[in-house]
Amino acid sequence: MSDQPTLKKIKGGVCAPRGFQAAALSAGIKNPDDPRLDLALIYSATPCITVGTFTTNRVKAAPVKVSQAYVKADNVQAIIINSGNANACTGVEGLTDARKTANIIAKELGLRQRQVAVCSTGVIGIPMPMVRIEPKLPELTKNLGEKNGEDVAHAIMTSDTCKKEIAVTLDIGGHNVRIGACAKGAGMICPSMATMLCFITTDAKISKSNLQKIIHEAVDTSFNRITIDGDMSTNDTVLVMANGESGMPTIKRNSKECKQLRAALSHVMLEMAKSLVRDGERVTKFVTVEVKGAKTYHDAKKVAEAVANSALVKSSWNGNDPNWGRIIHAVGYSRAMVREELIDIHISGKAACLGGLQAKTSMDSLRKAVQKPTFTITINLHQGKAGYEVYTSDLSPEYIDFNRSEYAYWKQARKDGLV
Amino acid sequence: MSDQPTLKKIKGGVCAPRGFQAAALSAGIKNPDDPRLDLALIYSATPCITVGTFTTNRVKAAPVKVSQAYVKADNVQAIIINSGNANACTGVEGLTDARKTANIIAKELGLRQRQVAVCSTGVIGIPMPMVRIEPKLPELTKNLGEKNGEDVAHAIMTSDTCKKEIAVTLDIGGHNVRIGACAKGAGMICPSMATMLCFITTDAKISKSNLQKIIHEAVDTSFNRITIDGDMSTNDTVLVMANGESGMPTIKRNSKECKQLRAALSHVMLEMAKSLVRDGERVTKFVTVEVKGAKTYHDAKKVAEAVANSALVKSSWNGNDPNWGRIIHAVGYSRAMVREELIDIHISGKAACLGGLQAKTSMDSLRKAVQKPTFTITINLHQGKAGYEVYTSDLSPEYIDFNRSEYAYWKQARKDGLV
Repeated sequence: MSDQPTLKKIKGGVCAPRGFQAAALSAGIKNPDDPRLDLALIYSATPCITVGTFTTNRVKAAPVKVSQAYVKADNVQAIIINSGNANACTGVEGLTDARKTANIIAKELGLRQRQVAVCSTGVIGIPMPMVRIEPKLPELTKNLGEKNGEDVAHAIMTSDTCKKEIAVTLDIGGHNVRIGACAKGAGMICPSMATMLCFITTDAKISKSNLQKIIHEAVDTSFNRITIDGDMSTNDTVLVMANGESGMPTIKRNSKECKQLRAALSHVMLEMAKSLVRDGERVTKFVTVEVKGAKTYHDAKKVAEAVANSALVKSSWNGNDPNWGRIIHAVGYSRAMVREELIDIHISGKAACLGGLQAKTSMDSLRKAVQKPTFTITINLHQGKAGYEVYTSDLSPEYIDFNRSEYAYWKQARKDGLV
Repeated sequence: MSDQPTLKKIKGGVCAPRGFQAAALSAGIKNPDDPRLDLALIYSATPCITVGTFTTNRVKAAPVKVSQAYVKADNVQAIIINSGNANACTGVEGLTDARKTANIIAKELGLRQRQVAVCSTGVIGIPMPMVRIEPKLPELTKNLGEKNGEDVAHAIMTSDTCKKEIAVTLDIGGHNVRIGACAKGAGMICPSMATMLCFITTDAKISKSNLQKIIHEAVDTSFNRITIDGDMSTNDTVLVMANGESGMPTIKRNSKECKQLRAALSHVMLEMAKSLVRDGERVTKFVTVEVKGAKTYHDAKKVAEAVANSALVKSSWNGNDPNWGRIIHAVGYSRAMVREELIDIHISGKAACLGGLQAKTSMDSLRKAVQKPTFTITINLHQGKAGYEVYTSDLSPEYIDFNRSEYAYWKQARKDGLV
């Protein structure tokens, strides 16, 4: 397995790779009295390429539209991010605000406007409080430094309860390469609705088209495994910056080195994706739903997503109930080709259902398995050889409670004269 | 509008039409000490035709498989129903139990086995406690009477908090025709997971093939409007019995009389469907999601279902939050053809979002609209002329809490030696 590189975890996040700097500060975006960090900047001091994947939602936030165009048209060298306002459903004004933000940062850093990507996360439908953001932008660029990666991880948080960052190092063709990342997610419990942002930096040297290709593959086996039905929020964005500062020669397409970088990026993304699930809103369980023996890949995917997305299944996990009846029920309505009498369901290796019927395993032993904070549901359809895996969580009463109202933000927005 | 008959509501349920009898008793199906009614019988004393629609779930409960065959093969004249156990995922044993139940009832009533349909609702995966059910079946037939319709409505309840029954009378071609119905639903909050049963009786005279045709049309504009993604539970069943006791001549296909009966059946089903939503598990709001101006019927359907099925949208309704941002977000990921800048969203007639942007309506007035127990969300896509409407509810912390565990039933089942 020479294509599987040996990764070593190192300290830090987006500033771990050589040549990257960051800064974060509080602009009081949600509320002028809120002292939390909510504005962040990631910057490569040397020329850099950036590629990304963006939400497939037909309602796209202004910064997504702007960044998508900039990433395509130019070599993005800086990313300005805010939390507290999604700048989504804000019309022409929202686009103007996003472009203006990029423009100010670009001038400060001596870049072209299109070299600055813009990302936002927060409430939908309220215009950006530019009156509070604009004056802070020059300060942000002045604060840039190699030790502020962690601040970025903090500044992009919304309902997250902890920062998510990671950095790894690996050897590619005799060169030491570093990859750093930070991410935020408002919980992947209702996966299609969360805003997910992930920023990855690396000092590997690779062409833009080649990086774009491997990023798509890496996202498919990481973030797409938690965005259950492939839908994304209005703001979901993954951006990867590569500045080549490791000193290596340019990685060739389909080379061994290319596969190693892809494996490392996949690993980093999967770790970030899993950490989003773990920090899902009011989540108590991290559950791997593994489907085996499906006729086709798409059947396996349908079954895994139906189970992982079922409110009743998720509620039962919250209640430590090893309820395979609800699981097989979701398997049945998944629209995949299944035969009830062939279905086996195991909970962390213990048989709960064999051939569509209750297994003889002791109920206490099954209950103990779902009482653990982490467990695996394995569904074998015995219809073929295809498989699929998704990572999900339980659904708690506290989740609903937590999401009952954003009304206070709207009240503040009206106070600010924004809506 | 001569095809739209004038319906008069009358007292009663399935026994309101001439010639129908019913009985219900407690067999302690869930638990031998539980005194609640859980076994019911509906019977036409005179020959009768019965048609039905059944779950589209690939995992079908034994009674669904059995009844589907019986309804097709013979003229069903009695329906035996139990709550407390779904008889789903119970293998060959489950089929044997369902057939045996039909057989015993048939013998008691002097019918062929295939003239007795069997319906079950309750927990999945536990074999039927036949030891408690069998001895009660003769007693059930002996209790048959014309005043027991309400008992049936009670006996089929599971997590329902109130019985659902209705009876109407109308004039068809100078003949007085009656229709009665009862239904149960475990809440349509996560619509694909609830078990829904509905039994309708009528003394109209109509052929089986003609009744089957109009039933499909009626279900499509009633129950399918609350089973959001068209998926159904392992047990969902709608059965309609017609015994011709009104004394009318047989209704001809596509006649004015046929349209009148269809309209009346649609009305009865829609009333039952709405009552299921209103009694949804821990529901506080009844919400109509109305989509207009879609390019196609399917686009309208996708948008309505995405909004009505969104946990975040439902949570906001629970919190009296007039959050159009979450609604437009769900519209965006519905996979329908939409253009953000054309979308209008009204809450009970008040503009919340116009052209994809916050409307100028006062926030208090929007909040007041969603504070009401019943309101309508109207989404105009301004892309065409197609529309669709679904009926749904909010999602409460109490719903999750309520659904956290069925473990006690399983414990009882093991005690009974069933699993």
